Amino acid sequence: MALGEFAFIAERLRPLAAGTPGALELRDDAALLEPPAGAELVLTKDAMVAGVHFLPEDPPGDVAKKLLRVNLSDLAAMGAAPLGYLLALVRSRETTDAWLADFCQGLAEDQAEFAIGLLGGDTVATPGPLTLSLTAIGQLPKGAALLRSGARPGDDVWVSGTLGDAALGLKVLQGELDVTAAARAYLTGRYRLPQPRLALGQALRDIAHAAIDVSDGLLADLGHILETSGVGAELRAAALPLSAAARDLPGAREAALAGGDDYELLFTAPPEGRAEIEALSRQLDLPLTRIGDIHAGAGLRVLDETGREIRVSNTGWQHF
Amino acid sequence: MALGEFAFIAERLRPLAAGTPGALELRDDAALLEPPAGAELVLTKDAMVAGVHFLPEDPPGDVAKKLLRVNLSDLAAMGAAPLGYLLALVRSRETTDAWLADFCQGLAEDQAEFAIGLLGGDTVATPGPLTLSLTAIGQLPKGAALLRSGARPGDDVWVSGTLGDAALGLKVLQGELDVTAAARAYLTGRYRLPQPRLALGQALRDIAHAAIDVSDGLLADLGHILETSGVGAELRAAALPLSAAARDLPGAREAALAGGDDYELLFTAPPEGRAEIEALSRQLDLPLTRIGDIHAGAGLRVLDETGREIRVSNTGWQHF
Repeated sequence: MALGEFAFIAERLRPLAAGTPGALELRDDAALLEPPAGAELVLTKDAMVAGVHFLPEDPPGDVAKKLLRVNLSDLAAMGAAPLGYLLALVRSRETTDAWLADFCQGLAEDQAEFAIGLLGGDTVATPGPLTLSLTAIGQLPKGAALLRSGARPGDDVWVSGTLGDAALGLKVLQGELDVTAAARAYLTGRYRLPQPRLALGQALRDIAHAAIDVSDGLLADLGHILETSGVGAELRAAALPLSAAARDLPGAREAALAGGDDYELLFTAPPEGRAEIEALSRQLDLPLTRIGDIHAGAGLRVLDETGREIRVSNTGWQHF
Repeated sequence: MALGEFAFIAERLRPLAAGTPGALELRDDAALLEPPAGAELVLTKDAMVAGVHFLPEDPPGDVAKKLLRVNLSDLAAMGAAPLGYLLALVRSRETTDAWLADFCQGLAEDQAEFAIGLLGGDTVATPGPLTLSLTAIGQLPKGAALLRSGARPGDDVWVSGTLGDAALGLKVLQGELDVTAAARAYLTGRYRLPQPRLALGQALRDIAHAAIDVSDGLLADLGHILETSGVGAELRAAALPLSAAARDLPGAREAALAGGDDYELLFTAPPEGRAEIEALSRQLDLPLTRIGDIHAGAGLRVLDETGREIRVSNTGWQHF
């Protein structure tokens, strides 16, 4: 028998709010949040629909973590530290109590991982597919936010981690790509469980000029920086960081350029910051790779190892 | 032809964020919000599904306003003043651009009405019904929040406005109740366009001990106060405030006791506050009616005009 709304809140959601005094045990109309002194708050909201943004057979705990992490990645891209989150759970007729229990267990694990708690939200029913919406709240010192609009001519373009893994992982899950068991585990893990680069984002507040997380794809997301900053860029395709699992797969370069869902940080910084960024890479044990340059004007060109321009057919996908 | 996500954001949503500097023209990963000095933030999130929480034929502008207002009502119940909101719009295959244009026009009108702006959000697609999730952010002085848990023995129980109108209005819309044209306009208006009692909530911060908004129904919502406060109550059925349109309709008293969606404020306050509350009623031009008393112990009894207990069969509905 399905738990009713109140029982579900009491048994599954209330424990997730136990460490968050302002959640008021989810018993009140809204949650309270006392902003740290001198803080500016950062707010982001992402929605996910079963069958559209995740696969119905994905482990429920991974769905929970991905939902939370894509929002934390938005906080990371602005240099914010997470404070808490609200959840709207729109349950379908097929959503079982066991699915919800595993989903909440995933949230509990990631709450511990990222030291945040559930503040509040809503649970309702739909005749359509399970739909999830999460609002994450973060904080940073006033005026310290990293924006997309800060890139300046002469900046280096950097990216964290490796690119294209998530898009290749999705192809593996969809049966379109055959790989070794180890590569399968790595690539599908990158698709299912992105790693929000929170420590990196916060460390970059005083170094980077502009930042974004790679969710739509490198070309599309760099395009967002260029458009809002009013600048152009050149990318060196040979410099794109590819994982050992991705490197020799067909379509790896295209996935790195246009595949979404890697949730790495793409940022620009002046050349004077190179030594500091390289030190940060060692400190965080996270590759940070220079992949291009910002210049005055407009437009994005991708160059091969000889400096000749590559035509790119796909500039990333667009949800909607 | 349907607008793509980016065009929809540019043409419809960006204007809604124009007056909100922290929304960064919806061009960034997240929104910024500088909390007013000394403020505590109040956060609430409600979701609505087409066919479940609103009728597909409802005017889109009214749907937008109801979505915003039910969230503002949660802020009102805690005594908070609204600061802004985030929106997740999960568009169905049937959602037309014209529907979205009217929806956004409704948001624009209510933004002006309540002096708030759009901070950010997400737009995605679903094969299911149109689904909306809104997160509202408000503020109040630190420690000043009205909670459900503050009711004390000896408190009066008060309610604002009139009760049962929205439930009767829904019956009218569903063809279950035949009324005059004037009553139809009034009752359906109460169902479609609740009025968040923001000024009242803020004025009650120093007067009331506990508050909640009437969304599930008077009995259910008073039950929430009793449960979290660890007290009991008696309600005087004859004292329930009914509108002129509702007063003589069949089921009016039941709608007032158990009908949801009125979004009036239900609050408890010590008898010493009566004169101040009555003055507030005149000042706000809003009926505030004493309908019962809080006592030690537990349980909720409803009494008729002779003081005899009435058995109530329905304690309000439960979404999920």
